[in-house]
Amino acid sequence: MATTEPTSDTRTDKEPRTERGRRTLRKLLDAAAIEFGEKGFHEASISGITRRAGTALGSFYTYFDSKDEIFRALVSDMSGMVRTHSAKAVKPDMSPIEVETAALSGFLQFAREHKEIYRIIDEAEFVDPASFRRHYETTAQRIAERLEKGSQSGDFRPGLDEAHAWAIMGMYVFLGMRFAVLDEKRPLDEVVAVAGDMLRHGITKD
Amino acid sequence: MATTEPTSDTRTDKEPRTERGRRTLRKLLDAAAIEFGEKGFHEASISGITRRAGTALGSFYTYFDSKDEIFRALVSDMSGMVRTHSAKAVKPDMSPIEVETAALSGFLQFAREHKEIYRIIDEAEFVDPASFRRHYETTAQRIAERLEKGSQSGDFRPGLDEAHAWAIMGMYVFLGMRFAVLDEKRPLDEVVAVAGDMLRHGITKD
Repeated sequence: MATTEPTSDTRTDKEPRTERGRRTLRKLLDAAAIEFGEKGFHEASISGITRRAGTALGSFYTYFDSKDEIFRALVSDMSGMVRTHSAKAVKPDMSPIEVETAALSGFLQFAREHKEIYRIIDEAEFVDPASFRRHYETTAQRIAERLEKGSQSGDFRPGLDEAHAWAIMGMYVFLGMRFAVLDEKRPLDEVVAVAGDMLRHGITKD
Repeated sequence: MATTEPTSDTRTDKEPRTERGRRTLRKLLDAAAIEFGEKGFHEASISGITRRAGTALGSFYTYFDSKDEIFRALVSDMSGMVRTHSAKAVKPDMSPIEVETAALSGFLQFAREHKEIYRIIDEAEFVDPASFRRHYETTAQRIAERLEKGSQSGDFRPGLDEAHAWAIMGMYVFLGMRFAVLDEKRPLDEVVAVAGDMLRHGITKD
């Protein structure tokens, strides 16, 4: 995670201006992911975050006013990382269905390496409902755009809409919960193949 | 909800023995659904529950030892109600794919009438992780059994497994979140048709 640029878009006034500042912000967000992931929002503390980050308390307040604010930034950051990791798995010459399975594969690998993402996004429903909603709405929007592209190229059926996008997002989220977080015994390739098959043919025989 | 039998299976020692007792328990669970749904677990209180139920505080302690205990019973109760409402929508002469869309339709209608179910099940991830996991594992198990039946009858492809069940559950849960809870403008028949179509044909053109 340490090499990833912070993707949060909520604190334009406090954007770090130096490379060192960016590194500190990155460390704080990574530490916050662990702290919130392990302890949950209510038990997590700012001092716990700075201790894990190895930064002074003052550094925290350079970038964030409160525990609520870094939590909000973290949800936005993780949402951005899901996007980035899915996008990185996609290659330019892929067909629309290959794009879907590659994006899912990228997401599942990311979720196995960062299991805390589930707890953090899920807790946002209670701690910061607007962030929770924004995460799913933007993710669904991204899927809907891919579906639209696939329909235009003639690979996907026409008339795919927002409901298809939410259904597909639900498939991906629950496959991640089951096979990346609750139990990681099953090879991810198999899980991706199941989803790809369902997207290609549904589950009926013909 | 008031006419539904309590479905909780966690407190055999405190099962009500009279019809009046069953009604009181039902009232407490219904009141708890509202109290936890509106306030969340931490802000909710036993006195808030008994006030909404119109019962004495003593009645609460006849059935539950604590706020944690009624929350656990409520998750189990709601999980049972999802099962019941999905099952009620299914008729004996339906084909396996009709069973799926009917079960989804029953679930979506239930979720529109009981939006609090999302907040309660989702909060269980933090308040009572075992209940959260049990809810999804038993729901996935139920879907897997339907898939198995459909494969045996030759309606569904062979080789459908747990991953298909979790993918389908995720579709249903996210369609419910989007079209039953976040916004209920779209007719549920349309939403069900989208899911039925995906299960029949996937999203590709052929």
